[in-house]
Amino acid sequence: MKYNIALIHGDGIGPEVVNEAVHVLDTVAKKFGHEFCYTPLLAGGCAIDQKGECLPQETIDACKKADAVLLGAVGGWKWDTLPGDKRPERALLGLRKELGLFANIRPALLFDALAEACPLKAEIVEGGLDLVVVRELTGGIYFGERGTKETSMGPAAYDVEQYAEEEVRRIAVTAFDMAMKRNKKVTSVDKANVLESSRLWRRVVTETAKNYPEVTLEHLYIDNAAMQLVRNPKQFDVIVTGNIFGDILSDEASMITGSIGMLPSASLAAGNFGMYEPVHGSAPDIAGQDKANPMATILSAAMMLRYTFGLSKEADAIENAVKAVLAKGYRTPDIYTEGMTLVGTKEAGSLVCAEI
Amino acid sequence: MKYNIALIHGDGIGPEVVNEAVHVLDTVAKKFGHEFCYTPLLAGGCAIDQKGECLPQETIDACKKADAVLLGAVGGWKWDTLPGDKRPERALLGLRKELGLFANIRPALLFDALAEACPLKAEIVEGGLDLVVVRELTGGIYFGERGTKETSMGPAAYDVEQYAEEEVRRIAVTAFDMAMKRNKKVTSVDKANVLESSRLWRRVVTETAKNYPEVTLEHLYIDNAAMQLVRNPKQFDVIVTGNIFGDILSDEASMITGSIGMLPSASLAAGNFGMYEPVHGSAPDIAGQDKANPMATILSAAMMLRYTFGLSKEADAIENAVKAVLAKGYRTPDIYTEGMTLVGTKEAGSLVCAEI
Ligand SMILES: [Mg+2]
Ligand SMILES: [Mg+2]
Repeated sequence: MKYNIALIHGDGIGPEVVNEAVHVLDTVAKKFGHEFCYTPLLAGGCAIDQKGECLPQETIDACKKADAVLLGAVGGWKWDTLPGDKRPERALLGLRKELGLFANIRPALLFDALAEACPLKAEIVEGGLDLVVVRELTGGIYFGERGTKETSMGPAAYDVEQYAEEEVRRIAVTAFDMAMKRNKKVTSVDKANVLESSRLWRRVVTETAKNYPEVTLEHLYIDNAAMQLVRNPKQFDVIVTGNIFGDILSDEASMITGSIGMLPSASLAAGNFGMYEPVHGSAPDIAGQDKANPMATILSAAMMLRYTFGLSKEADAIENAVKAVLAKGYRTPDIYTEGMTLVGTKEAGSLVCAEI
Repeated sequence: MKYNIALIHGDGIGPEVVNEAVHVLDTVAKKFGHEFCYTPLLAGGCAIDQKGECLPQETIDACKKADAVLLGAVGGWKWDTLPGDKRPERALLGLRKELGLFANIRPALLFDALAEACPLKAEIVEGGLDLVVVRELTGGIYFGERGTKETSMGPAAYDVEQYAEEEVRRIAVTAFDMAMKRNKKVTSVDKANVLESSRLWRRVVTETAKNYPEVTLEHLYIDNAAMQLVRNPKQFDVIVTGNIFGDILSDEASMITGSIGMLPSASLAAGNFGMYEPVHGSAPDIAGQDKANPMATILSAAMMLRYTFGLSKEADAIENAVKAVLAKGYRTPDIYTEGMTLVGTKEAGSLVCAEI
């Protein structure tokens, strides 16, 4: 079958890591008999330089026409002096909004070969760690009304956390659907003992659970969830939560794996459309030096095959290839440890291709 | 000198652990020539049972007349079926509000003798861990306007995060004052890249810092702070943040020590008034069995001496006594490990007294 992929190489190490992901996708295409067509598009700092804006309309239009978007990374020192609303990172917010990407999917995986990098004691993560944070991405306090007002304690500023039933229901469905394909457990995180919006959240998630009798649903308060991730992360399968709580927990969960530079992510719309990108940033300090680790982007491409194209065999092939390359001791500089074989971005990509 | 202490024993193990703290305070009084007078007061479940409400007015009045409040723990299964606003835990919110306790102080300490219980790898916490989270306690989204409304995505619920300049300034002053007595570093945590209230927070904290030229001020976003606590907690001295972020970070920081049952806390008002209580709960499952660990309450009493009474030598004496008892291998059941000497609540208290 033929699939159309919008490619946003972006800034810094973005182009290098996306190139390796494309290299891997082409290898998958050949082996499994698919056709992947790529449309390279500008967004981020490079779009500011060439088009005068971080997210040109033609990029949005082309993304909408594609079946999925694969993105490297945007931003860098060069644009750090621009005002907040002109920065390259704004392109990500714009893409989420324009493409209706309401569900952010962040797997936190402990790679056996990299277990040493985990900051938690070995006995806590024994047998591996494999959880997914499903974060609502277009609602909540990050997108609520905000402003300033006068109070008896002087000038004040406010932001509104708000969730509507439909917003909660669709992200809950995403989480339960995912749990059905995994270990059938959903942990919903809120602060329902205090917040009105959290009580609505909990009620809608609980209602949604009735359609998934096989899935175990658990509720945790955000403060307790932040503790449990450190104390016993293996208790989790799918964590579903709102935008700000998800921001905090997905980053904490990534850090717990010790391999944040290896982690992929997906942002999904209704239907199968999604944008896929590594969790790491654009790392301008090592850009263009063949030093970047392409694994997170390669694994993001695997998520694209799994979630948007429904090609789970092919996704498995990529994920297993990455594990095999690590198991053989190949390491880019960011994850290098003594006794391993140091490789560059391109060689790392080629090694993955060779394992497919 | 004579000091008046309001004692709220509370529910579950509360009475037992408060009794041991009093035992220790009396030992300090004798040794250092002070006089501690105690007024026992009802709050929590026991107040519901005896007075029909979790926080009787006479308790509030007596607390206001005292120099400080020492509290054990409130709540338990027995009252879990009551509606939210009738629960024993409401007494804590009421006390904070009535007593103007706007600053919550949560030290996260790694006890050398208990380092094994830490969930982080030894190399990450090598040389110890000693940070304090200063959390704003009476503002922000936990106390903001809340409600429901209709939206295009169905019924919605909202909560307002709001901070006024004066609210931020007074908690910032608390944090900087504390840093001056410690390692002269303050990390302010917000989400200023997105939230208007966080931008005000950051501005006021930065202004306040000008009065503390010796203190290094650093700003972190909440998602990054949640990661850094796991990756490298030793970078922190004093963390200052708003109510909800502080709720999350203080619990995460406590968990990282591995000895959450050992940790004290203080809630301070303007001036020197404060309420002191262990971080742990009322543990109704072991109540009345001489199994509870009194150390967190004893250490809370030490904080009371340090922060409200200005008796730092006396506070040091208690803290060193607790460490000495641990170093000699005495353990209550919650922290018992093989080869140690198992002791009950009362014996643990007496052992601390013997070291003073
Ligand atoms: Mg984040
Ligand atoms: Mg909490």
